[in-house]
Amino acid sequence: MKNSSLSADRKEAREFQTSSSGLFFKVKKVLYEKKSPFQKIEIIENDFYGRVLFLDGLVQTTERDEFFYHEMLVHPALAIHPRPEKVLIIGGGDGGALREVLKHPVRKAWLVEIDQDVIRACERYFPWLDRALSDRRAELAVADGFDFIQKTTEKFEVIIVDSSDPVGPSAILHAREFYRKLKKILKPDGLIAAQAGSQLLHLREHSQKAAFLRPMFKFARFYSAPVPTYPVGTWCYTLLSDRIDPLAVKKLRLPSGLKYFNAEVFRASFAQPVFFEQALREKG
Amino acid sequence: MKNSSLSADRKEAREFQTSSSGLFFKVKKVLYEKKSPFQKIEIIENDFYGRVLFLDGLVQTTERDEFFYHEMLVHPALAIHPRPEKVLIIGGGDGGALREVLKHPVRKAWLVEIDQDVIRACERYFPWLDRALSDRRAELAVADGFDFIQKTTEKFEVIIVDSSDPVGPSAILHAREFYRKLKKILKPDGLIAAQAGSQLLHLREHSQKAAFLRPMFKFARFYSAPVPTYPVGTWCYTLLSDRIDPLAVKKLRLPSGLKYFNAEVFRASFAQPVFFEQALREKG
Repeated sequence: MKNSSLSADRKEAREFQTSSSGLFFKVKKVLYEKKSPFQKIEIIENDFYGRVLFLDGLVQTTERDEFFYHEMLVHPALAIHPRPEKVLIIGGGDGGALREVLKHPVRKAWLVEIDQDVIRACERYFPWLDRALSDRRAELAVADGFDFIQKTTEKFEVIIVDSSDPVGPSAILHAREFYRKLKKILKPDGLIAAQAGSQLLHLREHSQKAAFLRPMFKFARFYSAPVPTYPVGTWCYTLLSDRIDPLAVKKLRLPSGLKYFNAEVFRASFAQPVFFEQALREKG
Repeated sequence: MKNSSLSADRKEAREFQTSSSGLFFKVKKVLYEKKSPFQKIEIIENDFYGRVLFLDGLVQTTERDEFFYHEMLVHPALAIHPRPEKVLIIGGGDGGALREVLKHPVRKAWLVEIDQDVIRACERYFPWLDRALSDRRAELAVADGFDFIQKTTEKFEVIIVDSSDPVGPSAILHAREFYRKLKKILKPDGLIAAQAGSQLLHLREHSQKAAFLRPMFKFARFYSAPVPTYPVGTWCYTLLSDRIDPLAVKKLRLPSGLKYFNAEVFRASFAQPVFFEQALREKG
């Protein structure tokens, strides 16, 4: 897919969501631009969405709607685990997932981001990252997520995968081998929550993922919720555990200060439209 | 808001969703263009979305995602009414709502569209309209919806309001007076389902609407679901009745041939995120 971002006259940024359609943003100001060893990083200012972070032309975070994504990625797992002490976040250099994790009474949270330049840019332009990293419970590791999970000697109650999309350079973070390794560093009663891609655009990837996750975890469920600036608007997540069935949990532990997530939204997020259920039933 | 559609070189069409952001579509072919007495009508062909209908620069219908909207507009009311015989659709000249209504065992369905040119354009480019209008149960009235409901002598089990958005020329179809008149032509056990606008962009309008609908109907509920090409992606609908509480209905009557709607999606659609519940609690 041809991604994009700043136009030649720098007055507009665009995200190609398919090869023939996408979102455009009028640019009030270009705040940051760098080609890091891993990707092209751009942050612009837009009247409606505020600051917008693009990685290789794809919107990762906007000030206006990031809470849709970060709350739905983090709270389902954290709100149903009885005692989440150690939490691992893979990816998520913008700090939104870490900020949400720290709303829970966890003992320690690791943020493992591969790109030091993403951290630097976001510390400057998304102030919540700096605040989250200042929390004494937070630990930043600038490292490859795959390497980190092979080397760590810790075990975690909750692992959050805040990676890029299932197509492209992050495909490895959506593959069977990655989940097999994640499972080894997950406590027996642990939960994994992972962003899984666009509901409509990545149907084949969801179907393949369901095919290998369902034999691997006793409970392997997809849930979805909107993210206005993510491709085609509805985003999917997987929630994985051998002990905790999200659909059987009676009482959620909700921290204060939430703008999106509540118990009704949690239960609703497991309902899937007909076309999605059909895709998941097909062999991956 | 500055809407838009075809670019000067006719290679791209855009929908401004806010004054500084929106969707772009590469144009494979311009199929139809006309300034009718009511609005600018354009139909283009796009690789991903197929045929796309714009009215005054706002996307109304795309072949790829119209079923998200039309199924969620029509089936909640039709699936919970015990015996929907006469159904009125106000707006909806593209025929998608009519097509969905006719999947139910109704006796008669009226389509009241103000713009003859929309009917003509859609008959040509969206073949389901022609098929729906050929159904002996369907009746087309080219008329102003507000006039029609003042003159009709019929009463309806279900009324579907498939209007344009709450801001702009269709604002009258979102006002108290319109709903008061609708109620007069609704059977006592009847249901009204109406599109209500964007979840995130029209928060103030939802709050105002809740304030006048709740005293008017015993059950006045908002529900939401995604529509990828509608502004900011999550769409709201109201479901109104004096007799039937959608949340208390145990069994839905689902027709065959659905791609989006099912019983789980129905129940999930009433869950609202924190920011929406907060907006609705504020005085309109």
